[in-house]
Parts: sequence; structure tokens; C-alpha cells
Amino acid sequence: MEVINVGILGATGYAGRELTRLLAFHPQVKIKAVSSQSYEGQAFSAVFPEMLDICDNILTAPQEMQTIDLDCLFSCLPHGESAKALIPFLEKGIKVIDLSADFRLKAPAEYKKWYGTEHPYPGYLDTAVFGLPEHYRKQIKDAHLVANPGCYATSILMPLLPLLKLADTAVGTIIADSKSGVSGAGRSLKLTSHFVEVNDNFSAYSIGRRHRHLGEIDQELSAAYQRQCHITFSPHLLPVNRGILSTIYLSVNRTAPQCLEIVKKAYAGEPFVRVREPGDLPNLRDVLHTNFCDMTFTGGIDGQPVIAVAALDNLLKGASGQALQNMNLMFGFKETCGLVR
Amino acid sequence: MEVINVGILGATGYAGRELTRLLAFHPQVKIKAVSSQSYEGQAFSAVFPEMLDICDNILTAPQEMQTIDLDCLFSCLPHGESAKALIPFLEKGIKVIDLSADFRLKAPAEYKKWYGTEHPYPGYLDTAVFGLPEHYRKQIKDAHLVANPGCYATSILMPLLPLLKLADTAVGTIIADSKSGVSGAGRSLKLTSHFVEVNDNFSAYSIGRRHRHLGEIDQELSAAYQRQCHITFSPHLLPVNRGILSTIYLSVNRTAPQCLEIVKKAYAGEPFVRVREPGDLPNLRDVLHTNFCDMTFTGGIDGQPVIAVAALDNLLKGASGQALQNMNLMFGFKETCGLVR
Amino acid sequence: MEVINVGILGATGYAGRELTRLLAFHPQVKIKAVSSQSYEGQAFSAVFPEMLDICDNILTAPQEMQTIDLDCLFSCLPHGESAKALIPFLEKGIKVIDLSADFRLKAPAEYKKWYGTEHPYPGYLDTAVFGLPEHYRKQIKDAHLVANPGCYATSILMPLLPLLKLADTAVGTIIADSKSGVSGAGRSLKLTSHFVEVNDNFSAYSIGRRHRHLGEIDQELSAAYQRQCHITFSPHLLPVNRGILSTIYLSVNRTAPQCLEIVKKAYAGEPFVRVREPGDLPNLRDVLHTNFCDMTFTGGIDGQPVIAVAALDNLLKGASGQALQNMNLMFGFKETCGLVR
Amino acid sequence: MEVINVGILGATGYAGRELTRLLAFHPQVKIKAVSSQSYEGQAFSAVFPEMLDICDNILTAPQEMQTIDLDCLFSCLPHGESAKALIPFLEKGIKVIDLSADFRLKAPAEYKKWYGTEHPYPGYLDTAVFGLPEHYRKQIKDAHLVANPGCYATSILMPLLPLLKLADTAVGTIIADSKSGVSGAGRSLKLTSHFVEVNDNFSAYSIGRRHRHLGEIDQELSAAYQRQCHITFSPHLLPVNRGILSTIYLSVNRTAPQCLEIVKKAYAGEPFVRVREPGDLPNLRDVLHTNFCDMTFTGGIDGQPVIAVAALDNLLKGASGQALQNMNLMFGFKETCGLVR
Repeated sequence: MEVINVGILGATGYAGRELTRLLAFHPQVKIKAVSSQSYEGQAFSAVFPEMLDICDNILTAPQEMQTIDLDCLFSCLPHGESAKALIPFLEKGIKVIDLSADFRLKAPAEYKKWYGTEHPYPGYLDTAVFGLPEHYRKQIKDAHLVANPGCYATSILMPLLPLLKLADTAVGTIIADSKSGVSGAGRSLKLTSHFVEVNDNFSAYSIGRRHRHLGEIDQELSAAYQRQCHITFSPHLLPVNRGILSTIYLSVNRTAPQCLEIVKKAYAGEPFVRVREPGDLPNLRDVLHTNFCDMTFTGGIDGQPVIAVAALDNLLKGASGQALQNMNLMFGFKETCGLVR
Repeated sequence: MEVINVGILGATGYAGRELTRLLAFHPQVKIKAVSSQSYEGQAFSAVFPEMLDICDNILTAPQEMQTIDLDCLFSCLPHGESAKALIPFLEKGIKVIDLSADFRLKAPAEYKKWYGTEHPYPGYLDTAVFGLPEHYRKQIKDAHLVANPGCYATSILMPLLPLLKLADTAVGTIIADSKSGVSGAGRSLKLTSHFVEVNDNFSAYSIGRRHRHLGEIDQELSAAYQRQCHITFSPHLLPVNRGILSTIYLSVNRTAPQCLEIVKKAYAGEPFVRVREPGDLPNLRDVLHTNFCDMTFTGGIDGQPVIAVAALDNLLKGASGQALQNMNLMFGFKETCGLVR
Repeated sequence: MEVINVGILGATGYAGRELTRLLAFHPQVKIKAVSSQSYEGQAFSAVFPEMLDICDNILTAPQEMQTIDLDCLFSCLPHGESAKALIPFLEKGIKVIDLSADFRLKAPAEYKKWYGTEHPYPGYLDTAVFGLPEHYRKQIKDAHLVANPGCYATSILMPLLPLLKLADTAVGTIIADSKSGVSGAGRSLKLTSHFVEVNDNFSAYSIGRRHRHLGEIDQELSAAYQRQCHITFSPHLLPVNRGILSTIYLSVNRTAPQCLEIVKKAYAGEPFVRVREPGDLPNLRDVLHTNFCDMTFTGGIDGQPVIAVAALDNLLKGASGQALQNMNLMFGFKETCGLVR
Repeated sequence: MEVINVGILGATGYAGRELTRLLAFHPQVKIKAVSSQSYEGQAFSAVFPEMLDICDNILTAPQEMQTIDLDCLFSCLPHGESAKALIPFLEKGIKVIDLSADFRLKAPAEYKKWYGTEHPYPGYLDTAVFGLPEHYRKQIKDAHLVANPGCYATSILMPLLPLLKLADTAVGTIIADSKSGVSGAGRSLKLTSHFVEVNDNFSAYSIGRRHRHLGEIDQELSAAYQRQCHITFSPHLLPVNRGILSTIYLSVNRTAPQCLEIVKKAYAGEPFVRVREPGDLPNLRDVLHTNFCDMTFTGGIDGQPVIAVAALDNLLKGASGQALQNMNLMFGFKETCGLVR
């Protein structure tokens, strides 16, 4: 059984921790190095005691990662930093999976629009594959650089892409009202992640076409629809650790049962998609700690919009689980390996 | 200082408890009787120890309430039961505030449509005043029967009514994506209110024009708009005890700043409405344990829908606080009495 | 690779669900039947949608379990019911693991004292092995009937047994102040498990030697100490889904560092025990969704009691994980199989 | 009706916010100034939008507070800073209530022991009155400097002091196992207050005679007992915003019912103490958002320790509510004014 050497940059954020946990139990992976600016020199399991005896690697400085013999490198660094850190590995031909937003957008201008700075290595944008396996499986298998999608984006794209890809679909207004757990905001300290501020609270933020992830959402919807597609996206902060549920309203030339049939057919045989009946609405509990994306379609009566509901674990199908799924594809492993139990 | 005698039917649910607490501290109220089918004979403060030394009344059987000399009666009974229990008091001329849905709908056919049975006393539907003080203040002052609005309805009507009342407003699709704490589902036992099922979870329910409160929402929006108005309403269950936040999407012939100006003007001087700037979005924390309804308007850029965000405490402005506000109006007390601290 | 046929009685409680999930992923197990009084005829995954595609067995009536060819039967039935349901299987020679309290106590009089009724099959009490693998591994390997310990008991016995087994240990007062998540109270409906009553709350219950699990705790401590041992045990209800943390105060003729050395030695090589340093106190987060019991010792300065802190997941090391560990031992499988990832 | 001018130093922490809210509604108080290092120049209600229209004072720099004409000054500054900031006001004869720990300890050596530095103004330690109204009411009425007790200390002292004050009480080991909500750890940013780290978690910290508040606890217990008294104190962090529950184990020459009678008698007529029956254990829910301290006594059977359970809201009876109670006493107002509703 082939075993590959992997490294993780930025292993001490929430996505990094979850990814490292998954990799530690993957039978075809050897974790060669985990890096962290803040915790360099400490054992990974000293930072995360729940990892005691599971991953006791010493955290290295990010720059030391380049001295290590790797088959695959994951980056959980923040956008902006990530692209810079990854270039040397890409140039050496190491396969890279980037969990940041740095290689998700195809157009440098879009990157500037949403992230406020010029993309440092626009030449790589074309070669990066958007890492949504259910829609880019073939390209991911051959990719050297996978841009792992954002968690919100995954929850919105998964139910919509099969519809938009059909030539005879016509959509009007699309509104995604999304609700995310706090781990999506990262492990760094801010008042908006303070327990007392979040607990017993619920709030919208960055609404009105202001959230950065609109860039990748619009890009992928437009690519599927083959016409420009702009949605309304309203993120909200839930007082839970993990999970995203998106309630999506769309005016579309189909009924909810027709939409349901389309996604059922599109995702037949997919190991990580569960299309559910409208009487059995997706919710966070059913997807937490799994790599599933659950979805259904309802509404659309009396001229009202069709409603899609989709749920996933933002740290798994929304980040690290999907990254592992991509790694499995890139290295010819079983796609579900290390992801089901 | 005038003091009135009040009674509360169904005092041991969450709305009943909150109402009793408010009434116990109201300087112009004497609680003469609290009733409960389930806890008859026990002290109110034995059922709710946090009320020790605050309200130690013995809970009576509901039927005993009729023997008591009252100026005002509140009902926190379930719909269906409430109308039946209230008729004798109405016939005696006692002022009644009904927190159930029984007198909210004007058309008996609508009652049947949403609640599945014939209304037992349709003759009273006309005399009942919909208890939204900011919009029916004058009628409430003279009312003998006030139908206190539902919590979801209040959170949706408050931002929308001022817009819809303007003759030159034209609206298209309206979508209310609402999120409520668990106390809105009541104190009775069901698996969907079990701690383990709700905590760390988030879910939609009754979506696709199936929730009963659509009846009163559509009725009041249509009355304001003077044309039929049907909205999409998607309730969700938040893992918090109390609070409702509604994110409302509307296609309307105005910009968000214009909408904001309209509601600012409409609610100028209102003690329990706070119109906030779009950069300072309403959230649950800011309204919990208060009678405020906070709201703002944003979005509406590049042909996207205008977005209203409104938040309130479902047990206060969404139920018992609003009921007390109505009582203050009906008896000529200061409208904020017992509601501000 | 040997594969055994297993059945689960009472699969739709929280312990049953967790156990079924573990068994579904165990490579040497085939789930032949899951039973439930309340949900008979429904698919297991219809009751627990998170199990879709993982365990879709149809829930049978409990009595049908007898018609099925089994190697091992688990019971997650309530105490009292469990013993009655298990006898036919025991008489047929099927290996049984009982997660209820029915076979934990050795003395029928103790059973009557704590559970209020005569034990229905006292003849089996002697043959039952108390299923704490770290202390009864040899007996469990040969057992036909394993009485799986209670979750509170496991969290208290694990740190204390190694000390009490040493001939030169002398203990005085022992106090276990334990805090448990709500899943420990089961999935049945009661006001004390209602979300609104538990959330934002914290409470003690059954304190002052009144909790039933004292029976097994005292029994096992006394057996280790070879003298009668009675502790003070104070359970508390935490507003979390799962996890138990016990803070244990003991007057003992050793310092905290000495205690720490004793347990380190006693548990060296144990796969599911992590002895931690006092500066790195166990907590729920580090053990949730694992079969670990974490522990440390501190305090004991200036004549104060030594303090043990132990944490585990009440549904895993405190119930279903431990049951699986016992099954692995009884069938000669690797002890950690199906429990580590 | 007399109205006094008050100022609050450090108004933007959790205690400061709660205090400001209480003062804003107190009929005999005018808030002249609120100060904050971090938010100087912003409106109090811009920092805390829930205070919109309730307290819109502009936050001043702390040093400006000296230019304002005050009758009473509250400090919610951190220990160390607080003493320094308060001296000028004390020297001007302004009545001061200090919510920090700076004036709680009588002996400078104790201050150094627990806080690691020399006390900057030891001369004031003697004149400061420990602000526990139920035990120092007479002294508080005449005090110019009140040292408001810590929240943990209040929850432990309230049930124990009446017992220890009796000449014929003899106690042995005393253990306080205390559990606090996160607001007790303050509003400043730290990983241990990050939502994801606290939610679903529970942990002990600073156990084994290491927590600073032991100083004031031992001091006050010893003063009551008239002998040295050292307790074991184990703080734990609950995943809730507010509330403290202490479970206290004491070996004492009395039964639990005798203890109960003693505290009932001691606290008869006290407006903010509710002595409850052992079958009706105190819990957080019953005291949250109130100034009550609830307590009971149980246990003590078969040679086991007597158990006291006490609960309070750490921001009210544990901090700001108690501070207001002290202010009421110092200025001859009704003791409950502004605290009951």
C-alpha cells in the first residue's frame, strides 16, 4: 500500500487541526511536518491535548517546511500569505492543496476586487483547479494545485450547480441566507468570537454583497450557467462550534420536485452527498463530524421562490474533509479513504 | 394612582411566566389570580423558583378565574382553547388580551385554513384589535379585546408596514428568513425541544408556506398594502432560549437608504423601536430582556433585493411585553410603564 | 478475518445510537438486528438521519431479536427491563454485554436498596463481570455476561482504583463532585431535559448519597480497598450534550505527585487512559468523541485534600465505547479496533 | 428625592456594563461620567448597542473623571490599576466603591502573596469595608471606601459565615467546588474565552490553592470563625455567560438541617437571600438577572460531609448588584432600590 509524505502549513487553526486529525488516521499518509508561526517548537499535541498519542509531531517554523521531502503539501494559511508560501513547493512540482482563497478566483481582477490587493502570482490562477470533487473530479485527479473551496461556497454551490448546468434552466433572483458556526471565523482572538458575545446571540454580518466569498460563488455559478450570475448572500453567525446551513431562495423555471429530481440524478452514487426529501429537512446535527453535504428542495408554490436547504460541517466538507477528498483523488486513493467511519 | 386587578390564564408556559413577572413589578397592577391546568394548587413560585418572594400566588384551576373580580384578563392558553375560555369574560365586559392566535385573523375562512377547525366564536373576530401598538394605537386604547400578535409576525410586520402603507410603494417577492429561540416552541415536552436535539444544532421547519403564522402576516401586510400580499416565510430553530431575528428580502421600488428613512420617520418617538444604521446590524443580544424591536435596511445594490433585518425578544416585544404595552394603552397608563428598566 | 453477528436491544436511546454507529464501522462486526419498542418498523436511519447510508437496518420489535442468529447481544434497555430481556439469550449461551445497571451489583440486597425492587435473576449476578477493561481484562475475556459500568462510576473509579488497590494506601473522606452532559439523562422527554430549562443553567441533583450509581461506585472501591468504602457523590447537570468531568477530593496518605506516579504506572500501555500533568488539567473538549479517560492529580498542600480530575465522554468510555472495548476482549479482537480514529 | 452624581471607571468591561445599566435605571442616581481607556470618545451605547436610548453618555478618558463633580465613584478597573486610580478621589472625600480586589485584603502581606506586588497604598486597607451587606451593613453605611467582594467569594461566604460566627461551631476540612460562567473571566480577549474553546467544554482551573480569591475567602472565614481557616477552592469554567454555583463540602459538628436553620435565622428578612429546602436545590436559572443569593444545606449522612449549595449571578450579587446595594446603604437609600423588578 502506497504511503505518501505530507506537510501542513498553518496547522494550528481550526481547519489545520481538523485536517491534521484526519491525516493522522489516514492509512496511506505519513505526516512529515506540521508548521505554525505561533507555536513553533511545541508538540502539536501540546497545543491540542485531544491529539495526545495521535499526533505528537513538533511544530516547525513554516520556512523549514521547504527542507522536507514531501509528496503533498496542504496550506491552511490565511489568504495573501498562502500564495506566497506555496510558490516554492509548486515550482518543485510538489502537489499542493490550498485551503485559503488564494487560488480560487480565475480572474486577477476579481481577486483584487474581493481581497483588496493584486494577486502575487496571477500566472498560477489558470492552472489551479477548483476543488469541488463532485463537479471537477476529472481535473482534480490531474491537478498539481487544488484550490479548496470556501465553506459557504460549498454549501451554496452543491445544490445549485446541477440545476444551472442544464441548458434549459433559467434563473432569476438567487438569495442565499447562510448560517455558520463560529469555527468558520477562525481561532484568532476577536471580540466577535468571545464566548459571551456569541453565546445566546445570533447576528447577520457582511450582508448586501460585501462578503468576500461572493467572488468564488458568482464565478462558479456563472461558469455552470454560462451566463453572468450574481447572488444575494447573507452570512449569519450561529452560537455553535461548527456547521453551516444555507437556505437558498431561487426564482427558476422548475418546480421544487423537479429540482429535487435533477440533483438526485446528478449526485447518484456520490459518496458524500445525501439528497433528502422535503419532509425531512437537512440540519446541522445530521452532518456534524461527517463529510456529507445534505440537501433538499421545497417551496415554489403559488409563484413563491423554490427553496433549497443545504447543510454541511464547515470544517469537513466545508474545508479539511474536502481537502482530504481532493488528496485521495490526486493520488489515486479510494475517494472515501480516511473520511468515513 | 389607579391599580387594576388582573388575571392570567395559562400562566405556567414561557409567555405566561414572563407576563406574570412583568405584571408582578408593574406599579399599577395587582395580580388577583394565575391559573394553570397542570399545576393547579401549587404556588406560582414553586413552579418557577426564580419567582420566590416575587409572585407567590397559588395557581387556580382555569374555571375558578370566573369567580374573581377582574379589570383585565390575559390568556396565554393555546389557540383553540383560548377563545373558548375567554368568551365568558368578554360577555361580562372585562377587558381581554389574548396572546393566542384565536382572534388575530379577521376572516373565519382564514382561521379554518391555518388552524384546521371552524372558529368557535366568529362573531368576535370583528371586534378584536390586532395588538401592534405602533400601528393600531388608537384602536387599542378603545378595545375590549386585543389579539396580541405572534412573535414571528411582529418581527416581520414592524419593518415592512411603514413601507407598505405608502401609496407609492410597489413590492414584488417578499421573503422572510426568520430564526427563533426555543422558548417560542413552548414549555411542553417534545423531542424537538430536547436539549440534546437542539444544542449544537440548527434547522429549518415548516418552510414553503406551511407555518400557521403566515395567516396573520399576510393579512396585516395586505391591509397595509391595500392589495393581496403573500410572502415566503421560513422559520428556523436557533439553539438559544429566546430572541427572534428576521432577515427579510424584498423587491421594492426604493433603495435601502430610502426604506431606512421611511421607517425612521414612521417610528420617530416610538419608545420601543430602534432604527439602526446598516453598519450596525441588529442582533439578539441587543434586544434580549427588553421590549425593543431593532431594525435596519441594507442591500438593494445592482438589482439585488433590499434587505431588512429586525430583531426582538420573542417573549417580550414578541409576546408578553407587547401584551403589557397593550394593557397600558387600554387603561390609560404610561405606555412604557413596567417595560423599561 | 472473523466477523461476528451482533444485535442491539434498545438501539434508539443515546447510548444505543452511539453503539450502533461504532458497530456499523467495526470491520469484524455485522449488525444483524437493532430493536426498539417505540420505533419498530422504521429504518434506524429514519430515526437518526445522520446514519443514512451508514446503518439503514429496520428496527425490529425487541421480542423478534430471539429469532435471530447472534454471536453477541448488547442491551441498552433501562434497568429492570434489561435483565428480563437478556435471560433467554444468556440461557442460549449468547455472549451478552448489558449497558444497564442490572448486573453491576454483586449483592441482591444492594440492588434492592438502590433500585427499589428485588433483582429478578439474582443467580446471574455472580457470573457477571464488571466491564472495566483496565481492571478486569482477564475476566472479561472469558465472560459470557459483562455488566458495562455506569458513566459516572467509570469517571470516579478510573483515577481511584489504582490507589486503593495498594495495600499501604489509607484513605479517609472521598468526595466526587461530578458534572455530566445532558445525554446522560437519556433521550426520553422530561422537563429537566427541555432545552430552555438546561441551556444557560447549571444545577446539582440527587446529592447527599441519593444517586443510584453510588451502589456500584462503593462496591468497586470497597473491592479494591478490601475494606468498606463509602463516598460522597454529587452529580451536576452541565448545559452540554456529552462528557463527564469529575473533581474528586480525597484525604489519603500520599501526596498528589505520588498519586500521579501510581496511576501512571498502573495505566502504562493502556490505550484509552491518558495521565496528564497537573498543569495540564483534563477537560471535556479533549475527550469528546473519543474513548479516552484523561486524568491527573493535584492539590494536597498544607493538609488540604488531594484532588483528582478525570474526564471522559459519557457515551463512549462511559457507555458504548467501553462496551465495544469489552466486545473486542470477549471475541479476541484487537482491543482498540473500531475505537480509534 | 435626593439624586446623587456618580461616575464609573472602567465602564466597558462586563461588570462595568452591568453596573452602568443598573445605575441608568436607579431613580436617585445621575450618571455624570463613564470612563474607558479603550473606547474613549465613543458613546457608551455605541459600544453596547443594547444601551441605546438608555445610556448614551460619551466615554471619557479615566483621568478626566477627576474634573467632574461626583458624590460616588465606582471602579471596575483591574486590580493594581484600581487602587492607583482611586486615591485622588478618596483624598477628596468622595465615596468610593471598588469592584476590584485592591482593598479587600486587610494585611498587605496577603496582598503581596496573592497578587504578587506590594500594595501601593496600604494605609487605606484598614479604612476599607468589605462590602458584604448582610454581614457588614452597619460599617458600610458609614464607609467612605467599600471593597466590593469577589463573585466566587460571595458565593462561598454567604452560606458559611452564619455557621462560622457561632461560638459553638467547629469545622474541619472545607472544600468549595465552584462553577462560574465566562463573563467572570472578563471581556478581554484570550483563547480560554474564545467561543469555540468554551462551548461544549467544561474545565477546572487554578485548583489546588492557587486562585487569588482564596485570600479574601480565607480572611473572611477566619474573621468569622475567630481562628485561622483555610479552604480548598476549585474554580471551574461553565459554558454559560453568567452565574456561579458553589457546591461546598464541610465537616462540621452539625447536621444539614441544623445548618439550614442557622442560615434561615441569620438571613430572615434579608431581601436578597433565599434559603431553600434541600429538595429544591438552588441553580443558576433561578438567580440569573437578579441580585439574589440562593442557598441550601443537605448531605451529612453516615459521617459524610454536610453539603452547602449556593448560587448567584456573578455580575449582580457577585459584582455590580452588590455594589449598588452598597451604594444604597452608603447614601441612605432604600437598600433594594434599583435592584428589584
